[in-house]
Amino acid sequence: MTTRTNETEITVDPDVPLVRITREFDAPPAKVFRAHTDPELFVQWNGPRSVESRIDHWDCRTGGSWRYVGSRDADEFGFHGSFHEVRPTELIVQTFTFEGMPDGVALEKLAFEDLGGGRTRIVATSLVDSFEDRDAFVASGMEGGVREGYERLDELLAKG
Amino acid sequence: MTTRTNETEITVDPDVPLVRITREFDAPPAKVFRAHTDPELFVQWNGPRSVESRIDHWDCRTGGSWRYVGSRDADEFGFHGSFHEVRPTELIVQTFTFEGMPDGVALEKLAFEDLGGGRTRIVATSLVDSFEDRDAFVASGMEGGVREGYERLDELLAKG
Repeated sequence: MTTRTNETEITVDPDVPLVRITREFDAPPAKVFRAHTDPELFVQWNGPRSVESRIDHWDCRTGGSWRYVGSRDADEFGFHGSFHEVRPTELIVQTFTFEGMPDGVALEKLAFEDLGGGRTRIVATSLVDSFEDRDAFVASGMEGGVREGYERLDELLAKG
Repeated sequence: MTTRTNETEITVDPDVPLVRITREFDAPPAKVFRAHTDPELFVQWNGPRSVESRIDHWDCRTGGSWRYVGSRDADEFGFHGSFHEVRPTELIVQTFTFEGMPDGVALEKLAFEDLGGGRTRIVATSLVDSFEDRDAFVASGMEGGVREGYERLDELLAKG
């Protein structure tokens, strides 16, 4: 099986202002989890290829917080949030703010499901308090960045 | 004007799984804000009179976290979360988990509006990812605890 078979599914919930992203990886949960919690690994795959991520602050534990800066050419954009819960190899619950919209905040849950055979399914949800904000987020082109980021993660996981 | 005129309004949003609490206080924003951020003041008014609150951990700043324990007779119940943003005298954005339901989490926003004349309106929203969870929270009797807590806060603010 090659990583090409792993499709990213992005759906908007019909009932609540939430986006749900589902993706499988050809690596066990502990390894996929670590790529999300180790800042040196995280910056190697997060976001589209055209954006370079730099960690400003990263304290990945229940009650910790994080901030990173993405840069593309001369543009920089910051993101920050809190780690509400970090449950090793299973779950990350965090808040997320894009600093270009400093009053916006999403509650994100990232669940890692063990599919057996060294494979993992991620189910990531992002909840905001209005359908307008949810739909503007989806319309902003996040989809391409998410798919490309997960392709980069496939490559990183394949390295060993 | 006496504090008796200040009514707590609790409404459920028809469109999103959110509870909105609105309450006015006969004290300026800086003072009402401090009663929410100073742990020694917070435990004096939080929750119903029958419950004693004890701070376990309290780091009230953007990126900090908190935990307190409520006790009533022999029963103890913990609550914890992260301070996503603390914007002095204006806004607190935080996460909230009741440890009796450890997989549940709410995203809370607490805005302090200056009404002038030494008065403040609080608008507190609590967002979860399902209507079932939102409605179970409201049905759990939170309303009485919130109203009684705010009466205790009136009394604390009146002390000077």
